[in-house]
Amino acid sequence: MGRWEPGASSRLREAALALYLERGFEQTMVADIAERAGVTARTFFRHFADKREVFFDASAEVEEKSLAALEAAPATAPPLDAVAAALCAAAEVIGDNRDLARMRQTVIMANASLRERELIKLTSMSVAVADGLRRRGVDEAEAGLAAETGVAVFRVAFERWVNAAEDRALGDVIHETLAQLRTLTAAT
Amino acid sequence: MGRWEPGASSRLREAALALYLERGFEQTMVADIAERAGVTARTFFRHFADKREVFFDASAEVEEKSLAALEAAPATAPPLDAVAAALCAAAEVIGDNRDLARMRQTVIMANASLRERELIKLTSMSVAVADGLRRRGVDEAEAGLAAETGVAVFRVAFERWVNAAEDRALGDVIHETLAQLRTLTAAT
Repeated sequence: MGRWEPGASSRLREAALALYLERGFEQTMVADIAERAGVTARTFFRHFADKREVFFDASAEVEEKSLAALEAAPATAPPLDAVAAALCAAAEVIGDNRDLARMRQTVIMANASLRERELIKLTSMSVAVADGLRRRGVDEAEAGLAAETGVAVFRVAFERWVNAAEDRALGDVIHETLAQLRTLTAAT
Repeated sequence: MGRWEPGASSRLREAALALYLERGFEQTMVADIAERAGVTARTFFRHFADKREVFFDASAEVEEKSLAALEAAPATAPPLDAVAAALCAAAEVIGDNRDLARMRQTVIMANASLRERELIKLTSMSVAVADGLRRRGVDEAEAGLAAETGVAVFRVAFERWVNAAEDRALGDVIHETLAQLRTLTAAT
């Protein structure tokens, strides 16, 4: 107990998720998580600011990789294609562990403060993507709309992926959802 | 003071907005709002559950009118056109008072708990619109995507309308934003 171990952060993440599912998020204390992971509470706080942050500490990486992909998209790519590249980069950070994503989602949906945090992260993602588009020379109004649309596509795709009975990668579901959006908007 | 007056609810709304702008949302107490409006705190609580609700008490009406418009759209209307009708009905409830909307938005953006509440209302709107689309026979996957897209269009249009230097109605800005989305998604 308490000694430094390189795997502490992922053990803490697993322990937190297991406890949130067993007892509920509100009923789980940082001390319980640390104990389950075999570390001290102090070690917990070296890795996470609070017990909500266990679920959101990847979001800086998600944002960073998404923005890098947005920047790397060909200069001639239409705004929504550049956004699609950003969303797929986000999907790669999230990874292929659908069971884990599903459990995380179950906990988030059961707790108002986690749902709020999730919504705020998505809004901040939208703002960052819009800024990235402007840096690519997309005009102000188009940039905001393309970013908001991208986040909407991501939300829908993520929900489909998490709930799906089959095994497609999140990136594939994002492409499919975007194609469906193109069909939807083409119908008048 | 304290006597019942038919205009109490709108006076309370105005008093609250003025105080939130003057002192900040956190620093304003229900007693202050009631005093400024010339009523008792008890009267305040007859109209609003808490001081956040002053800003969100129209959302039930917004949702109701939107869903009615969604239902009233021609059976042959493509999903996104039915959603557009719903958004324009929401715009009509919000009305033409852009100065008021702008002040409200200033207060909301300055306070995390109000921003969260706003995001949650939009999410609940999206769920309700998706349900409405399903009742129109739109398939499950399309319904969710059309609703999320509609909310994205609404958010962008509302922000444009609130910040615009000119005088167009919110409904017109919604139509323009939707047209721009069609252009964005058509580019590949």
